[in-house]
This record gives sequence, C-alpha cells and structure tokens, in this order.
Amino acid sequence: MPYPAFFIDGLHLAMSKPLAFPALAQFAAATTGRNMTKPAYVAVASGVIMMVLLTVDPAYEAAHHWVDAVLWACLAFFVFEWVVRLRHAVLAQRGWTYALSGRGLVDAAAAAAIPLALMFGTNPKSAWLLGIFWMLKVVPGIPGLRQLRRVLVQESGPLLSVLVIFLMVLFLAAVSVYFLERDVQPATFGSVPAALWWAIATLTTVGYGDVVPITPLGRVVAAVVMICGLGVFGLWTGILATGFAAETRRDNFLKTWESVSKVPFFAALGPAAIADVTHMLRTMDLPARTMIIRKGQTGDCMYFIAAGEVEVDLPGKKVALGDGAFFGEMALLGNNLRSANITTTRLSKLLVLDLVDFRLLMARHPDLAETIDAEARRRALENK
Amino acid sequence: MPYPAFFIDGLHLAMSKPLAFPALAQFAAATTGRNMTKPAYVAVASGVIMMVLLTVDPAYEAAHHWVDAVLWACLAFFVFEWVVRLRHAVLAQRGWTYALSGRGLVDAAAAAAIPLALMFGTNPKSAWLLGIFWMLKVVPGIPGLRQLRRVLVQESGPLLSVLVIFLMVLFLAAVSVYFLERDVQPATFGSVPAALWWAIATLTTVGYGDVVPITPLGRVVAAVVMICGLGVFGLWTGILATGFAAETRRDNFLKTWESVSKVPFFAALGPAAIADVTHMLRTMDLPARTMIIRKGQTGDCMYFIAAGEVEVDLPGKKVALGDGAFFGEMALLGNNLRSANITTTRLSKLLVLDLVDFRLLMARHPDLAETIDAEARRRALENK
Amino acid sequence: MPYPAFFIDGLHLAMSKPLAFPALAQFAAATTGRNMTKPAYVAVASGVIMMVLLTVDPAYEAAHHWVDAVLWACLAFFVFEWVVRLRHAVLAQRGWTYALSGRGLVDAAAAAAIPLALMFGTNPKSAWLLGIFWMLKVVPGIPGLRQLRRVLVQESGPLLSVLVIFLMVLFLAAVSVYFLERDVQPATFGSVPAALWWAIATLTTVGYGDVVPITPLGRVVAAVVMICGLGVFGLWTGILATGFAAETRRDNFLKTWESVSKVPFFAALGPAAIADVTHMLRTMDLPARTMIIRKGQTGDCMYFIAAGEVEVDLPGKKVALGDGAFFGEMALLGNNLRSANITTTRLSKLLVLDLVDFRLLMARHPDLAETIDAEARRRALENK
Amino acid sequence: MPYPAFFIDGLHLAMSKPLAFPALAQFAAATTGRNMTKPAYVAVASGVIMMVLLTVDPAYEAAHHWVDAVLWACLAFFVFEWVVRLRHAVLAQRGWTYALSGRGLVDAAAAAAIPLALMFGTNPKSAWLLGIFWMLKVVPGIPGLRQLRRVLVQESGPLLSVLVIFLMVLFLAAVSVYFLERDVQPATFGSVPAALWWAIATLTTVGYGDVVPITPLGRVVAAVVMICGLGVFGLWTGILATGFAAETRRDNFLKTWESVSKVPFFAALGPAAIADVTHMLRTMDLPARTMIIRKGQTGDCMYFIAAGEVEVDLPGKKVALGDGAFFGEMALLGNNLRSANITTTRLSKLLVLDLVDFRLLMARHPDLAETIDAEARRRALENK
Repeated sequence: MPYPAFFIDGLHLAMSKPLAFPALAQFAAATTGRNMTKPAYVAVASGVIMMVLLTVDPAYEAAHHWVDAVLWACLAFFVFEWVVRLRHAVLAQRGWTYALSGRGLVDAAAAAAIPLALMFGTNPKSAWLLGIFWMLKVVPGIPGLRQLRRVLVQESGPLLSVLVIFLMVLFLAAVSVYFLERDVQPATFGSVPAALWWAIATLTTVGYGDVVPITPLGRVVAAVVMICGLGVFGLWTGILATGFAAETRRDNFLKTWESVSKVPFFAALGPAAIADVTHMLRTMDLPARTMIIRKGQTGDCMYFIAAGEVEVDLPGKKVALGDGAFFGEMALLGNNLRSANITTTRLSKLLVLDLVDFRLLMARHPDLAETIDAEARRRALENK
Repeated sequence: MPYPAFFIDGLHLAMSKPLAFPALAQFAAATTGRNMTKPAYVAVASGVIMMVLLTVDPAYEAAHHWVDAVLWACLAFFVFEWVVRLRHAVLAQRGWTYALSGRGLVDAAAAAAIPLALMFGTNPKSAWLLGIFWMLKVVPGIPGLRQLRRVLVQESGPLLSVLVIFLMVLFLAAVSVYFLERDVQPATFGSVPAALWWAIATLTTVGYGDVVPITPLGRVVAAVVMICGLGVFGLWTGILATGFAAETRRDNFLKTWESVSKVPFFAALGPAAIADVTHMLRTMDLPARTMIIRKGQTGDCMYFIAAGEVEVDLPGKKVALGDGAFFGEMALLGNNLRSANITTTRLSKLLVLDLVDFRLLMARHPDLAETIDAEARRRALENK
Repeated sequence: MPYPAFFIDGLHLAMSKPLAFPALAQFAAATTGRNMTKPAYVAVASGVIMMVLLTVDPAYEAAHHWVDAVLWACLAFFVFEWVVRLRHAVLAQRGWTYALSGRGLVDAAAAAAIPLALMFGTNPKSAWLLGIFWMLKVVPGIPGLRQLRRVLVQESGPLLSVLVIFLMVLFLAAVSVYFLERDVQPATFGSVPAALWWAIATLTTVGYGDVVPITPLGRVVAAVVMICGLGVFGLWTGILATGFAAETRRDNFLKTWESVSKVPFFAALGPAAIADVTHMLRTMDLPARTMIIRKGQTGDCMYFIAAGEVEVDLPGKKVALGDGAFFGEMALLGNNLRSANITTTRLSKLLVLDLVDFRLLMARHPDLAETIDAEARRRALENK
Repeated sequence: MPYPAFFIDGLHLAMSKPLAFPALAQFAAATTGRNMTKPAYVAVASGVIMMVLLTVDPAYEAAHHWVDAVLWACLAFFVFEWVVRLRHAVLAQRGWTYALSGRGLVDAAAAAAIPLALMFGTNPKSAWLLGIFWMLKVVPGIPGLRQLRRVLVQESGPLLSVLVIFLMVLFLAAVSVYFLERDVQPATFGSVPAALWWAIATLTTVGYGDVVPITPLGRVVAAVVMICGLGVFGLWTGILATGFAAETRRDNFLKTWESVSKVPFFAALGPAAIADVTHMLRTMDLPARTMIIRKGQTGDCMYFIAAGEVEVDLPGKKVALGDGAFFGEMALLGNNLRSANITTTRLSKLLVLDLVDFRLLMARHPDLAETIDAEARRRALENK
C-alpha cells in the first residue's frame, strides 16, 4: 500500500483551487454547512467497513485493490472536507475558533491522523485502524443526543453516587476474593488487579467465567457481589428512567409550543389553556408528497397544519388546506374510518392530536368543540 | 420420508371441491376470518414440536412414523388454509391484495416453502426446518402487539440514538481491543470482526467467555465497555418504561371511553367529568356463566354493566341486572364482605371501579355518591 | 438413619392427646392461627439448612447425629402442626376445606412427603431433599406478595405479549443457528433442542459460554439475538415498573384512608379534601417502647396518632398523647431540630406527614395550618 | 518493610504536642470538621492504589521503596486524623460519643487495623490489605447517598418481598438441579451448596459457565431459572425506579422551598402558588467567577438570585445584580440568543426556571408575567 500518486495530486488540486469547477464549488458549499452531507455518511460507512475488511486476511488478500482504493478515497474526501471547512472559517475570520472546536478537532483527526501515522512509519495495517475516528463525525448528527446529554447532566448527582458505590463494592469484593483465593488459584487471583478483573465482570453481570472463585468463602463473597450487581443495575435504570421521562415531556412541550401559538384555532384560548393544549399535541415534520391519511383506514388522531399545505383527494375534486387549517376530525367524531386520502404538497409541519387528548380537549374547551363540530358538519354537507 | 400419497390426494380434494362437505364448508368459513382458529393454534404448536423432534436423532428413530405423519398433516392444514383464503379473496375480487399483504405472504410461505424446498431436492431434514415460519402465523393474534409497536414507533427517536451510541461504542471497543490483543491472542483477536464478536457479547453483558482480553490494557478497555453496557441497558429500559407508561394510560382510556358514555349512571355528568371518570374505570369482558363475585370474599371494587346481564343469587330468589345497572357497591360501603354470588348470564362487558377510585369518585361527585348510597340502602332493606 | 423411636412416640403422643399439657395446648392454639409462628420460621430455616448440610459429605460425616436429630425434629414439628390444624378444622366442620386449600396441601406435603418417600424405600438422602417444600410454608407470610401478584395480574396482557415475542425469537434463533452450525459443531449444535439451550442462555444474557457459535453467519445471528435480549429486558422492566408505580400508590392510599377518617383533626375537611390528604400521608405501625423522635435530631416529618399512645419526655415531666393527637410539628415550623424524645407506650398506628407534603397541606388548607400553629405556640409557651 | 523510625517519631509528635506549629494547628482544625478534607481524599486514593500495587509482584519489586513510603505516609495521616479528632471530641466532653459513632469506628479501623495486624505478626502483604477500609472514609462524602438510602428504606417492603422470592427460586432451583445432575456430574453438582453456586450465577444472569447442567431436564429447569432471573431483575428495577422518581421530586422541592420564599419576586404569591412555583424551580450553587451565560448562546432558562451576586458584562459598563434580582429572561421573551456575558462575583445560589416552566408560570400568573415583561422592556431601553 504505497502512497498512490492520485492521492497526492487530488490533495494538491483540492488545496490550490478547490472552487475551480462549479460542481465542486456547490459540493464545497454543502460541506461547509452545519450538518453531515449524504456523501459524508457514505464515506464514513464505507471507510469503516473497508477498515474492518483490511484486518481480515483472506478478504484483504482477495480484494486488496478495492479495499485500498476505497480507503484512500474516503481519506481524500475527509481531507477535502477539512480543507474546505478550514478555508471557509478562515475567510469568515474565525479559523482558530473552528480549528479548536470539538467539530474542528474531529475533522482534523479524521483528515490528518492516518497520513501522520503513515509518515512516522507506522505499519499501514495499524495506521488505517485510526479510521475508526471517522465514526466520531456522525456524533453531531444523532437526533436524540442532546436530549440524552441533558438527562445525564440533570441526573449526574445520583448517577455519580451509584458509580462511587459501584467502585467501592468493586474494590471491597476484589480485595476480599484476592485474600481468599490467592493461595488456591495463584495464576488467576495472584494480585488485586487480577481480582478486580473478576470483580468487574461479575458486578456488571457479564460473567466471562475465565476467572472464577472456587473456595466456599470466595463463592459466598461472589454471590453477594452478584446481588449487588442487580441492585446497581436497578438503581442505574431507575435514575435514567426517571430523568428520561422528565426530559421527554420537556422536549415535546418546547417543540410544540412555537407551533401552537401560530395556529389561529388556538388563538382564542388564554395562555393557561394554551399551555394545557401544548401538553396534548405532538409536532410532526413531513416531506412533500407524503400520504398522511389513507381512505378506509381507522383514524385515531386529527391534525392541525402549523406550516405547509395538504391536499384532500375528494371524489371529483381536490381541496387544498393551508396554514392553520385542521383535518382528520371526521373519523374521530363519526364512524372511525378515514373518508379521503390526504397528502402533503410541500414540506409541512403538522400538530397531531391523539384520540384520547381530542376527547379531553373537547371536554375541557366546549367552544373549541363547537368550532370543530361546525366545520365537520359543513364538510359533511359539502361532500354529499 | 417419501411424498405420501394421502397428502397429494388430500391436496387435490381441497383444491378441487373444498366446500363439498358441510363440515369442511363450515371450517373453511371459519378459516377465512381474520383471527387464528383453534385448530390453527394446535397445528402451529404440534408442527413446531415435531419439527424440533425431527432433529433429535434418537427421538426421530424411535417414532419417525408419528413425527412424519404430524408434520405432513400440519403442512396439509396450512396449504388448505392458504387455498381457502386465496379462493375467498379471489371471489371477493381482492386476490392480489391478500396475496401480497403481510398475512398473505406468511400464509404462502407456510404453505409453499417446504414443498418447494423438497421439490428442489433439499435434504428433507433441512427442508422441514422451514416449518419455523409457521410460528409467524401467530403474530397477528398476540394481544398487546399493537400496543408494543406503538411504543416502539413513538420512542423510535431516542431508541435510535441509543442504538447509534451502542454501535459506536461497539466499534471503538472492538478496534482498540483488536489493536491491544492481536499479537498476544492472534487466534481469537486476529481481525476486527473477531473483536466485534467479543465486543457485542460484552456490551450486552452476555459474556460467553470464549474470547477474553488478557493484556492489562485490554482488560481496562473491557471494563469500560462493561460499564457502558450497563448504561446502554439503563437508557434502553428507561426509554421503554417511559413510553410504555404513556401507552398503557392511552389504551385503557380509549377502551373505557366508549362504554362509559353508554352507562346512564354517568350520563348526568358533564364531558369534563366523564373524561375524569374514564381515567378511573377499567373494562373487562367476561364470557357467560362466569362467577364475578363470590359470597364471603373481601370486596375491593364495584362494577357497572356496560353491556350484558348478571344474575344475583340472593337467598330464596334470583335477581337479574341488565345494561347500565351497577353492583358490588355494598361491600365498599359496609362490612367489606360480599353478600351474594353474582354470575354473568351471557357475554358481558363490565366497567370495574377500584376501591381507591370509588372513594375519589364519591368525594368529587357527591350526587353520584348519593345515588349509589340510596340504591345500596334500598337493596339492603329489600334483602332483609 | 433408621426411624428413631422417639419420633414414633412423639407422633403417637401428638395424635392421641395433643392438648394434655397446658404449654402444648397454648402452642397448639397459636399454631391453628392464620400466620406463621416464630417456632415455625425457626423450623423451616434450620430444616432447610440441615437438608443442605446432608448433601455435603464431609460436613455430614462430621456431624451426622446433629443433622439427623434436627431434621427429624423439624419433620416432627411439621407433622404436629398439620395434625393440630387438621383437628382444629375438623372440629370447626371444615376439615375438607382446609385439607384441599393451598395452605392445607402445603402443610400436608411438608408433613407427609418425606415419611412417604422413606416408606416407599427411597434413598434417605434423596427423600430428605423433599424438605425443600418446607420453604413453601413461608409464602403466605411474605409482606408484599399480594401487591406483586396484583401487578402481575394487571399487567398480564403486555407481559404475555413479551413472553410470546421472547419465545418466537428463541425458536427462530435456535433453528437458524442449528442450521448454520450443525455441520461445524455437531456435538453442541446437533439438534434444535441443543440450539434452544444456547438461545435461551443468550437471550436472557446469561451467556454460559459452553455452547457458542463459531461460523461468521452464526455469530451475526447471535449478535441480533443479544440485542433482542436487551430489548426484551427493557420491555419487561418497563411494564413491571409502570405497573408497580400504579400499585404502590393504590396500596398506600387504601392503608391510609381508614386511619385518616378516624383522626378528628381531619374530620372538618370535606370528602374531596380528605382524598387529597390521604395521598400525602403514610401509615406506620410501631410496637410498644419504640423511640419515634430523638432529641437533637433533624426533623423532616410530623405525626398523627391514628390509634395508640406516645409519651413525650419533657424536662421534669412526661406528657402522654393519645388517639387523634399530633406531634413533631415544632421542628417543621421552627428550628428544624427535635426538642424532646418521644416514645410509644403501646402498639400504635401513626400517620406520617413528610416535610414536603406538610408544606403543601399548609398551603392548601389554611385552617389546618392555623390549628397546628396555635397548638405549636401553646406547647412552646407551656414548655418555657 | 520494618517499622520505620520516622513513623514512630511522627506519631509521638502528633500525640504529645500536635498543635505546636501554626500550620499543623490549622490543618488539625480543618480535620476535626465534619467533611473530608482534600488531603484526606488524596490519602485515600493514593493509599488504595499503593495497596493494590503492593500485590502486583513485578511492580512492587521495581518500586518497593516508593510504595512502602506512600503506604506508611497514608497510615500516618489517618492515625494523625484519628488522634486529632479524638482529642477534639474529648475536649468537648463527647469522647465516647465520637469513638463509638459509625464515623469514629471507621476512623479507628483506618488508623489501628494495620498496626494491630502487623503487631500480631500477620504477613505484611496481608496486613496492608486492611487498607481497603480506608475507602469507607469516603462514604459520608457521597452526595446522593442520603437520597439513595431513603429510597431503599421507603421501598424496603417490596424489595424484601422480591428478595424472599429470589431466595426461594434459588433454593428450589438448586435442589432440583442437584437431584437431576448429581449422578452425571458429581464433581460440580455433588452437593446442594455447589448447586446453589450454579443457581445464583444463573439467576443473576452472570452465567460464568464453570458449572452448567447437561441433562435435558436439568436444562429445562435452568431455562425456567433464567426467565425467573429476568423477572426478578424487572421487579427490582421497577421498584427502584418508582421509589427514585418520588424521592427526586421530594429532594428538589425541599432544596428549593427555602430559597423561593427569600426571593421578593415570589413574595406576593399566596402559599399555594408558592408550592406550585417551587415545583418548577431548581437550585444551583455556583462558586465565584463562574460564567453562567455566554453571549450568543441559545438561552433556554432564566435565573433568580436567591443569594450572592452576578455581574452583567454590557458594552461599555458592568452592572451588578444582587439578592432577589432575576436575569436571562430576555432570551426567553425575544430572539432566543443571550445578549451579554454574565458571571458570578462570589459564591451564589441561583434558582433556575426552565423554558417550559417559564411558559407555564407566565400563563398561570399573569401578574408575574407583567413584572418580568416590564423589567425586560426597561433593560432593553437602557441598553440601547
């Protein structure tokens, strides 16, 4: 796997005049954006798969040209990405801000780690293993990550306590079992670190079985450790479940709040009622040409259009509904079956009201109930 | 295991004139229905058991006639089922709709996979293994499946995040341990896929112990992976528990709402109060001749009849209570013990009000409390 | 271990005139009661321990006289218990009711299983293993068992769904891995039942490692099974957590409701407010001479006496507080530290009001707040 | 490792005139306090690490002077700590109270266990293992421990039930598998204690695999035990999750309540509204010079100063805000971005109001909303 000439050439091209061709310019513009581009996902996935194949001797021997080519192409892509982003940041006079941000460092590592390792004479097979850092590029794109991080931060106190208790049980168990087993099994329990290895595999209920106490007292200690393991598990899960439930409610409320106040239907409500309604709704972002409602299906929710447009496919004509309109209420009021196909015409943000919450809303706000009823009657008449 | 003649004959019969005999016609009619019939459950269970026995050499040698017979009978049953359903769908002019629906494909696979495999010369022992697909027929009959699916869909965002984090930890762990252990244990950690096998068994806390790091650094990485495993577990469970709690409430509300509005006792309540009451009740479907209340037992709930009829077995006479009536309130108001046996006379749908919610209801709706009190007094007088 | 003469004699004595001696009569009366007696707990514990020792050859050889003596004594005790209960039930004309009830059958098994096994010539070491059924006697005495059973009943629908999914994954995994591994590892994956053994150990994340797939495809299937195992775990836990939370609230409400209405302090509240207050309180049963409050400690709750009496140890005098009184409010209103020791004088049932709920109660019910404030001022004056 | 002279001398010095030097006097004063000092954390950590190294033969041989020196230094520190605390307690006339308290006993064990063991001729390597007790000194310093203990106490009833069920399944499983496997595997299933070892490793899903049933019936029992293991896990987690959710709410309410009533902004609210507001706020303790808000970031909460001071870094001037002031509301009302850096000037306690709760608060208390709006407008004008 020598340094292929095309790589050097490509790199040179990218660095000297990356914006010389229109297609490249467009691609470079997309690259500087905040989110991962589709080619970047492809590059990460194929790069990691090739890196894995590289370590499987028979596979590599059979197809080493392909593997090498894809790896170098991925590397070139990440170098190009880094260079374009760096150039963009420098032009915007925040070169260092980007270069030292988490994202900048990940980009730098993805681009430079392997070439540097190769330059310093590391075995190529080992150097390419650094391609695993490419995976870190995906991190900002994970949808619920911010939510997960908030849970971990909010619950850090109790989680830390459990961790300290975990470590304490770990050390106490390791020292006791080391004391009890060292004479009988000097090969496996010959030092406290070796006993710690046993203790952690037991306390997390992994239980490899490569190191196992054999004296009666050692086994009694092990049994206590196992039961403690269950307890740590339970506490851990309980804390995370509690935090997650709170975070989910918060997240949904925030996403929905903005949209609710934009729908005229809810405008008449006082602020306390809006807060109440917000808890009942859920936002949904749909691309253009998505079928939301299929004729003949059972309906268990209705929709409000926060932004966008949908098309109702009635027999003989097509009706468009825009911002602030609602639809799907007829199945909830009447015979439970959807009476027409409804499709988005462009990217739309909808507010979904579940059947349960529909009934609660109707019960608590009789004026809204009347509005919906009147509209449903009007539509039923019109469609006849 | 040659193709037995009776199978060919039976198949021929089933395809040519399946509705020639009244019993068969009745059975065919039941088969076309949406739900699994009882014979179908029996066929799936016995078919799978026989398929398992087929692979146990001593058992098969001892009873191969029986095993073969049952397997062919099951297959015949599923072929018959498929043919009847297909015929029914074709007559209703929706042959392709059925054939390409999930259920139609499962029926086709259950009926055709084994014959096709045998036809193409697969070893019979391997071909019959395809009988495992018979189990898929049970899927639509699982009661809470729709509920589970809704939970998975609603929580798909966070679950996906956890999965991505899981995969990331998996790959990082595998590459690090591969790097640390490949020289010491080339047989077990000789490639990244091999290290992935270790990583997944560790991260899910399965811990087979067939592949275990032995270098100190490898063990430190393994310890971190194990603790991450606990974390993934906790997040996973927390997300599912949160989603499940919400879904359970929703499901119960929907099932109860319909029935509540039909009971005249609650008709006087406003819609907001009905929504409140619905949260307190639980529906229960009971077949005919089921004893609901046994004299002398401790009572901790009362019942409203949404639909159906019950019989109160008083000393000397039997009293029937129909739609909208309530019973079981005396034990909640008085001495805690049930004073008579009460049995359903036909399939009935009851609304159950737990002791806790009974007290809350009495506290919040004094008019309902009075109605129940008056009725209980009237009944007590009458029974004296 | 021949049948010792004293056993036959004791049994004869117990059966012929069990109530001949006062102590025995008293003991027999206690035995007929519903709950386990203390000697019964001792007998179960020592019996099971000795049964375990019996199987440890060195221990049994060293102390076989003791082990035998304790085992026969326990057996004699259980036989005596059964006979006394049976006699009591026959005298109350409900002999068969008792004998065929769950409890009667457990008593019968505990008393008769071992003698019968010995009579039919079973090896004594095996016969005494039946002593494990003695443990079942403890079941009705487990405090939260009724609560756990209610959770399992209430959530039986979703739990069953998960179980069916579990079994489905189990069989699909077993058949696939059997198909993939049978030629490579005929000794361990030679039949579907053998593959099922692997699948269940994997799906429950136990992972013994005695049977492990080695082909690449088999390992991929195994990885999927492990992740499914996590999912099953999560669903299982989520369902149980949801059910448990509901049941805990219900249980606490019921236990507290009775007591609250007996305390005159809360009598002035309307029924809706009482339901509200009940959710805030927790009952606590304390034996005589228990110190509830220790002078100088930080106080975070106050107490209402539902039934019983406490003694306040003031400097120079002792004040008794009876049914309906409250205490411990001064630390919540003032300086946070308890100002006197308070002890129960007899078995008392207290209602505990936590600091959080104390504040909510004071905020929502100003009249109650005034009563408590006035009493606290009166006490503070008196103690000066 | 002979008793080094410096240790005896140091001990003598510490005991005879520990307060002779100012630095020592100050250190001694810090030591008598309730919390762990920073040097104590260092001593515990380095002591335990050295104790672990002591058992690793190659490491100890390479650096035994260092290891010994650190160990003796740690021991000297703990002896000194114990002596100072004891002296302090004796001077305050509560010597025995301290000596027999949990903390006093831990201090005594940390100081005296190793010297006593060495004195009685224990092998030094074994004696130093007692250094593991040093870890117990950290216990009172764990932040969430009191919370965890309250959960365990509150839920002790159900947890105990699950434990009893766990033990019952354990013993039943062990006896059954012992009965089924003892003839086939006398080496591993030769006694009930040996079978118990298998049962506990299985029921906790650890699954070492050192002892595994091989008979078909034994494996069926094992499968049942594994599924019970999942159930026990689920119940355990469910109970802890329920208890933890309740405890978290309680803890937060108590911490916040005190501070809320001190903020004049909330003083106008009635007690019921204060209880409501308390549920929305969260306290946060920040050291001096901590940046709370960074200009340009997205803001999702506002802050009230319960105690302390912050500095707003406006263009051209710095504004200080003291007790009772609020800040961060502009990002919530306006364009979502923070408009200035805000830093604490000294140790401050802040109340955080999340965006979700901000909206609920504004909706429910229009007068507070007006106050905040007016202040935000005033600030916006001023900053222009």
